[in-house]
Amino acid sequence: MITVSVELGRCGYPIHIGAKLLAQSELYKPHVKGSKLFIVTNETVADLYLQKVKQAMSSVGEVHAAVLPDGEIHKQLSTVESIIDQMLAIPCDRKTTVVALGGGVVGDIAGFTAACYQRGIPCIQIPTTLLSQVDSAVGGKTGVNHPRGKNMIGAFHQPVCVVSDSDTLSSLPEREFRAGVAEIIKYGLIRDYEFFKWLEDNMDLLISRDKNAVAFAVEQSCRNKAYVVAEDERESGLRAILNFGHTFGHAIETGLNYEDWLHGEAVAAGMVMASEFSRRLEWLTRTESKRIVSLISKAGLPVSPPTTLQPDHLKSLMKVDKKSESGAIKFVLLKGIGQAEVTSDYSDSILNSTIQSFLQ
Amino acid sequence: MITVSVELGRCGYPIHIGAKLLAQSELYKPHVKGSKLFIVTNETVADLYLQKVKQAMSSVGEVHAAVLPDGEIHKQLSTVESIIDQMLAIPCDRKTTVVALGGGVVGDIAGFTAACYQRGIPCIQIPTTLLSQVDSAVGGKTGVNHPRGKNMIGAFHQPVCVVSDSDTLSSLPEREFRAGVAEIIKYGLIRDYEFFKWLEDNMDLLISRDKNAVAFAVEQSCRNKAYVVAEDERESGLRAILNFGHTFGHAIETGLNYEDWLHGEAVAAGMVMASEFSRRLEWLTRTESKRIVSLISKAGLPVSPPTTLQPDHLKSLMKVDKKSESGAIKFVLLKGIGQAEVTSDYSDSILNSTIQSFLQ
Repeated sequence: MITVSVELGRCGYPIHIGAKLLAQSELYKPHVKGSKLFIVTNETVADLYLQKVKQAMSSVGEVHAAVLPDGEIHKQLSTVESIIDQMLAIPCDRKTTVVALGGGVVGDIAGFTAACYQRGIPCIQIPTTLLSQVDSAVGGKTGVNHPRGKNMIGAFHQPVCVVSDSDTLSSLPEREFRAGVAEIIKYGLIRDYEFFKWLEDNMDLLISRDKNAVAFAVEQSCRNKAYVVAEDERESGLRAILNFGHTFGHAIETGLNYEDWLHGEAVAAGMVMASEFSRRLEWLTRTESKRIVSLISKAGLPVSPPTTLQPDHLKSLMKVDKKSESGAIKFVLLKGIGQAEVTSDYSDSILNSTIQSFLQ
Repeated sequence: MITVSVELGRCGYPIHIGAKLLAQSELYKPHVKGSKLFIVTNETVADLYLQKVKQAMSSVGEVHAAVLPDGEIHKQLSTVESIIDQMLAIPCDRKTTVVALGGGVVGDIAGFTAACYQRGIPCIQIPTTLLSQVDSAVGGKTGVNHPRGKNMIGAFHQPVCVVSDSDTLSSLPEREFRAGVAEIIKYGLIRDYEFFKWLEDNMDLLISRDKNAVAFAVEQSCRNKAYVVAEDERESGLRAILNFGHTFGHAIETGLNYEDWLHGEAVAAGMVMASEFSRRLEWLTRTESKRIVSLISKAGLPVSPPTTLQPDHLKSLMKVDKKSESGAIKFVLLKGIGQAEVTSDYSDSILNSTIQSFLQ
């Protein structure tokens, strides 16, 4: 087991990465203060791992669980309200620990529920997808979607610990695994050129789920994310670079009504669009841009947005992005591979021509 | 104008108290970072003060407003969702400032909306009732009710500034003004014996809204609250004493379905019940307990719970209280006037006989 620390003073926490962790009650025990645990999971994950986690936690406290239907479509305020209703019926108190067992959707919903329940209770994140292990379970961003935009309702609420069991990745559908690789590639692009080169050399191994390759990629991703989060917990500066590819990506997801495409797939296409935008602004060379497209393509991820979207619609959706200020869309762009910068200083016509190069 | 500071490091903020403050745009200006302000208010307050505040703020930024229907019954998650919907339609960005213009209900709803909107944006509190000026607008507690309990969904979200205009108190209905006096008395009881004595001597002046008496009572209440909040922002210890009278009080409110009684009235009866409980535990003398009942009575506030409530029902409602842990109800009790203590170390039969002395 490897442990990566997120250094946030008294709100810091460990990320445990390794095999056979789900059943280890001693990983949970130090982080549970009260007598109750409330697991939030979904139907698919419950079938696979709920009993195992329940059993491990039963030596730590009284265990309850809410099993949600699958899908990003349920990442909405009414789901949070129904979980809170179940928790109050027990009743869970302010020392109850919420446990998020599942992928990014479960982690975001459960984390936000913990953030709001009686003004905030502790949360343990147990991410079971590659995407959540390398990204969403770390850093304390929680929330739900609104029909007008993704993650528009939420809170910063750091977990008390993250348990990433690599065995859970073996049950992941191929498409979901690849979606997680999109966020892994992101870390190479925004601040870790060495890691990007490693990914160029080892993408085949990673995609075939070679245990060592996966373990290294998860650890390296968590180290990058932990560093950025420790520098800027509330996203007042540096942390925004973690949104590379996400401005285009979120607009794609909203445009598709959160259906059809996985988050990681939208981010993959978004990273290609942001790279192309960077190239057109002459921040990236054509060679660099080609290496990026080639790596994303090698991971079996989309390298362009769905052609059903209209350029104007995509652009209007980007304006509701949380990064936009006073109507100006802020972008995370690349000044080279491994070097991201946030900017709202760009020519609108180059943005338009970038979008049109993909959607016309 | 008097300014009381809440000392919370970089999250500290000023509470401005005085006459004719609503129209002073220079009070708002230093706290507005972006280009937009979004006022949340209710119908009654909007008729009286919305234009004045809008006009003052128009020199600071683009002003929008949501006018809610009146009443605690609307302090629910669906109201927050509808405000967020209006904000996203504009769209408001992460630098938009939410402005809570109204009493405790408006402040709690608007504060929680600011806490959740795009994971948290700044909020200015402009309390227009006595209760909110001396209590709810200060300290960062925000949230909404759930049918199973008051304030069960919420967040700690400190305002960037509080503007308490004493002129707004002149329009308050008599009953609401007296409800605010309940929280003022609370500060005397929990940690300020000198203030309690001042209240004994000056209750008639205060109730008749003598300007100097009201100004002194608001200032002294804010100083007490600011001290406690600065010591313990997240209520891990000391801050719990601010809930004196609230365990009984919240149960009364929930039992009445948040109707008929005002929050301050329920707290007044709750303080009498908590004092009686303290006396039966021999923490308070009979003389002290009589002085407390007499002061609350002098303020025209209820000194017993509604007789329609059943003792068992009241007790079961208290178990869902946020202060309860592992089923044991925690109480804030008095070891003398001006000295509150939190305890779960009491005889259950004395609790039962206390409740029965009021409800049988």
